[in-house]
Amino acid sequence: MSGRGLFVSFEGIDGSGKSTQARLLAGHLRGAGHEVVLTREPGGSPGAEEIRKLLLTGAGDRWSPETELLLFTAARRDHLERVIAPALDRGAVVISDRFADSTRVYQGVGRADLRGQVDELHALMIAREPDLTLLIDMEPGAGLARAAARGGGEGRFESFGEDLQARLRSGFLALAGEYPDRISVIDGDRPPETVAADIARVAEAWLA
Amino acid sequence: MSGRGLFVSFEGIDGSGKSTQARLLAGHLRGAGHEVVLTREPGGSPGAEEIRKLLLTGAGDRWSPETELLLFTAARRDHLERVIAPALDRGAVVISDRFADSTRVYQGVGRADLRGQVDELHALMIAREPDLTLLIDMEPGAGLARAAARGGGEGRFESFGEDLQARLRSGFLALAGEYPDRISVIDGDRPPETVAADIARVAEAWLA
Repeated sequence: MSGRGLFVSFEGIDGSGKSTQARLLAGHLRGAGHEVVLTREPGGSPGAEEIRKLLLTGAGDRWSPETELLLFTAARRDHLERVIAPALDRGAVVISDRFADSTRVYQGVGRADLRGQVDELHALMIAREPDLTLLIDMEPGAGLARAAARGGGEGRFESFGEDLQARLRSGFLALAGEYPDRISVIDGDRPPETVAADIARVAEAWLA
Repeated sequence: MSGRGLFVSFEGIDGSGKSTQARLLAGHLRGAGHEVVLTREPGGSPGAEEIRKLLLTGAGDRWSPETELLLFTAARRDHLERVIAPALDRGAVVISDRFADSTRVYQGVGRADLRGQVDELHALMIAREPDLTLLIDMEPGAGLARAAARGGGEGRFESFGEDLQARLRSGFLALAGEYPDRISVIDGDRPPETVAADIARVAEAWLA
């Protein structure tokens, strides 16, 4: 499941601005003549969006961490097969707001540390990484303020407070240390247009 | 995730009478004073029943074999955690109409042979077998006639014809060869009450 295109993911804590930056990068690359598929997880394909509904609604303990991990992986497999892989095969740039790194970090610092199972399950059923991951790093306080100002959002997964956000941030930075060739850390504590310019430079280097 | 109770599963091709026999055994053991939880897969818990709806509705190619396998495993994990394990812990007899053997056989002879992935995923996320599996074996022709007479049913998974049923039967019998201590093969080509008497004898030997 590889292809001629470029697979880019955006990662970061809630309120880091990754969805905005994903959209800005998509617009920038389309302006430069690339076919761009802008997508997101969990979801991104009709089947995966159905699974997303099971994941993001209901009580916080509706699923155990392990069942949740299986549902996220089922959604990712569908998203990869139906949307990401076909787009890469025809040479498009795929930009996904979150991918497997979110599972590694969120399932690693949440109710149970499943990182071992996360990695084994990924190797068994997904076995694909983005070519480039843009990690928008920022102070958890600033991110939470931004998420609160935006309102709404993913409920269950965004309302656990600054301490959790700080642990998620550390988790993402540790992951950047594990995958230095793939993950590029972007300072998100700057004006969005400055962040976007940085990101465009990094992405263009990969497309050159 | 083990317990003091007895975990029994029923397996077999469509129309083999396993659901009827599961019900008869439940009634028999309740009559003998046992607490019995009669359940089924896919489904068996509120969350797993939601996942069952995703699996059993929509077009036949709605999910790839791999995504389907992940959804079956998510449903099984939920069923095991929420229904089976708690019942076994309090000493009940759990009787499940299908369990992991159905996945091994159906995902092994269908659109793709995923037996290797099925086994790895089971070891990683389920890691539990029934104490006793009753495989109701019968001629595929007789089973299909019975399934047709019953009507309705699981649609997608029951309408693939006699050739598939013959391959599924062989798959189940091969599995009985792999797990001789756990799987008991019951001749289903006999009157239901004769089959039920056989099954009651086997189950009682496990409970003695």
